Amino acid sequence: MTDKDIRRRTIHDVAKAAGVSISTASNALNGTGRTNAETRERVKRVAKDIGFRPNALARSLLTKRSHAIGMLTNDTYGRLTLPMAAGVSEVLVDQGLSVFLCATNNDPRLARLHLEALLDRQVDGIIFTATRLDLPPPIELSKLPIPVVYVFAEGPSDHISFVPDDAHGARLAVEHLKNSGRSRILHITGPDDYVAVRRRANAYRDSVGEGAEVLYGDWSEEWGHFAIDAVFSRTGEKPDAIFCGNDEIARGVIDALRDKGIGVPNDVAVIGFDNWEVIAKQTRPPLTTVDMELKELGRRAGLAILALAAGEDVDTGTTRLPCSLVVRKSCGGEL
Amino acid sequence: MTDKDIRRRTIHDVAKAAGVSISTASNALNGTGRTNAETRERVKRVAKDIGFRPNALARSLLTKRSHAIGMLTNDTYGRLTLPMAAGVSEVLVDQGLSVFLCATNNDPRLARLHLEALLDRQVDGIIFTATRLDLPPPIELSKLPIPVVYVFAEGPSDHISFVPDDAHGARLAVEHLKNSGRSRILHITGPDDYVAVRRRANAYRDSVGEGAEVLYGDWSEEWGHFAIDAVFSRTGEKPDAIFCGNDEIARGVIDALRDKGIGVPNDVAVIGFDNWEVIAKQTRPPLTTVDMELKELGRRAGLAILALAAGEDVDTGTTRLPCSLVVRKSCGGEL
Repeated sequence: MTDKDIRRRTIHDVAKAAGVSISTASNALNGTGRTNAETRERVKRVAKDIGFRPNALARSLLTKRSHAIGMLTNDTYGRLTLPMAAGVSEVLVDQGLSVFLCATNNDPRLARLHLEALLDRQVDGIIFTATRLDLPPPIELSKLPIPVVYVFAEGPSDHISFVPDDAHGARLAVEHLKNSGRSRILHITGPDDYVAVRRRANAYRDSVGEGAEVLYGDWSEEWGHFAIDAVFSRTGEKPDAIFCGNDEIARGVIDALRDKGIGVPNDVAVIGFDNWEVIAKQTRPPLTTVDMELKELGRRAGLAILALAAGEDVDTGTTRLPCSLVVRKSCGGEL
Repeated sequence: MTDKDIRRRTIHDVAKAAGVSISTASNALNGTGRTNAETRERVKRVAKDIGFRPNALARSLLTKRSHAIGMLTNDTYGRLTLPMAAGVSEVLVDQGLSVFLCATNNDPRLARLHLEALLDRQVDGIIFTATRLDLPPPIELSKLPIPVVYVFAEGPSDHISFVPDDAHGARLAVEHLKNSGRSRILHITGPDDYVAVRRRANAYRDSVGEGAEVLYGDWSEEWGHFAIDAVFSRTGEKPDAIFCGNDEIARGVIDALRDKGIGVPNDVAVIGFDNWEVIAKQTRPPLTTVDMELKELGRRAGLAILALAAGEDVDTGTTRLPCSLVVRKSCGGEL
C-alpha cells in the first residue's frame, strides 16, 4: 500500500483530476442532478483511480446506518470471545462493517458507558457474549432501539441467541467411547450451577444409561486429580473411560492417572470438552475433546445482525449449533 | 436502565419538553445564538432529565473527530491482545472513546479492508499490536494521516511503541534465583529468531556470568521435556535452577523433573515467563513467573493515542515497561 493509496482524497481532488466542477463531481458520484453519461463514467473512473472514498460519517448521517456493530463481552481473557469475534468479523468485514469490542468486566457502570457510546454512534446492532451461557448482561439490553443478538449467552425468550449444543457435544463424546468398546464411563465435570454442566450431564446419563455417575467439582486440573484419587481408592469396579467437563479437568485426570501407573488410553480412555489447544495438544497423550465451534457461532451471530440491520426478518429463539469431536490419542481406538 | 433512559431523544423532544422552539433549544445546548441564561439552564436541565444525547455522528462531522480508535491485531487467540485491549479501553472509555477491534489474521487483504474501513470512519488513531515484538504489520502503517501507536510491537524508529522490557524480566528471574542461593542456573527458551528470546538470553548471560548456558528450542511443553531429558542424561554437574523462556516450556520442565524423581523446588527451582495463569497456577507446584504487565502496556498505548488525537506532543521511540515477578512455589524460598 503506497502513500498515494491512503491519503484521504476529497471530492475536490476528484473534481480537479476530472476537470469538472465540484457540484458536477458530486452529482456524478451520487447519481443526482443532470450529468451526461460520459462525464459520469469519467468522474467515477477518476475517483476510483485516485483512491477517493466517500465520507463514511456523512453517509451514515444520511442513511442512518453507521456500518458498525458493538460486541459487548465480559471476557477479558479472550479465550472464548476472540474466536467468536473473529467469526463475527469474518462475515462483516466484506460488507464494510466494523466491530467495536467493549469489555464490560461484568461491571454495570462500565457496561452502561460502553452501551451509551455505542448508541451515540448509532451502531447497526449489538452482539452480547459472555463466558458462560447463563450469565445475564450486566445491563438491560432487551428494550434497545437497535437489533441485539446473543452468542454464547441466552437472551430473553423473544430474542435471538446462538449457543453450542452442549447435549450434542456430550453425546458425541460418550458414543465415541461406547463405539470403541468402553463400558464403564464416568463423567467428571464442573459446578452444577452452570446450565452447560447440567445439559452435558443429562445427555451423558441418557447416553450411558445404567451405571452413569457424575462427579461435580470446579473447572480446575486440581479437581481432576482429586476426583481420580477418590475414584481409584474406593472399592468396586473402576471406570475404563472418563468424559470430562472441560479440558483442564481432563488434564488433571490424565496426570493423576499417570501418577498411579494407570495407562491412558489403554486402561482408561479420556475425553475433554473445549478443544482449548494450549491444553488439549499438550496433555500426554494429546487429548480427544469436544470442540464448540466458536468461530462458527460468531459467524452465525454476524449473519443474523447483518440481516436484522438490513431490515430482514430473523427467527427469534435459541439456535443450538452442533459441536464436533477432535480425536487425538487419549481415547484410543478399538480396545 | 429503563426504556425511557435508552430510547433516542432528539432535539425536538428537548424543545417540546422545555416549551421552546427547536432553534432556541439547539442554541441553548450548543452555546450559539442569543438565549438568556435562565432559558439556557432550563433547556440543559430538561435535556439531561429526558436523557437527550447529541448525535455523535453529526458532532464528529463538525469536530473532525470520530472518538473511536482502531486496534489492529494478528492475534486471533486473544491471550496477549485482550489484556492489552482491556488496558486501552480502560483509559479511553471514560473519555467517550470506543475501540474497533480488527483481527487481521496476518492477511494483507484482510488488514487492508480493516484499515480502509477505519480510515473511512475517520478514527482518531490506530493501535497496532502483534503476537511477537518483531512481527511487522501486514500493511504499511507508517504514512497514515492519523496517529499510529505500536504496542507489543516495534514500529519504525520515528514511531511510538510500548513493549515489555524483556531484559528486565530476565534479570528479575535470575536475581531472584541467585538471591535464594542457586548457583547453577540454566536457561531453556524458545527459538532464537525471536528478538524477545535473544534479549532475555543476553540479560540472563550478563546476570549469570560464567557457566551460563542457553538451550534454544520451540515454545512447547514438549521441548521442556526433551531439554530436561538431555540435560539430566549427560555427565557433569546438574543445574539447581532453570529459568524458562515461557510458561509452557516451564510446565514441560516441571513435569519432566517430577517424572525423574527430581524435586521442585528443593532440588531444582523453576521460573517461567508470561504469567499465563491457566498454566502458571496449574503446574505442580505452582509456577513462579515473569509478568509482562500487558494491561499496563495497553493503558500506556491508550494514553498516547489520546494525547496524539488531542494534538499534543508525545515522545517518539520505544518505551520499555518494567516486568514484575509473580512468586509462587516453584522457586522455593531460601535453600
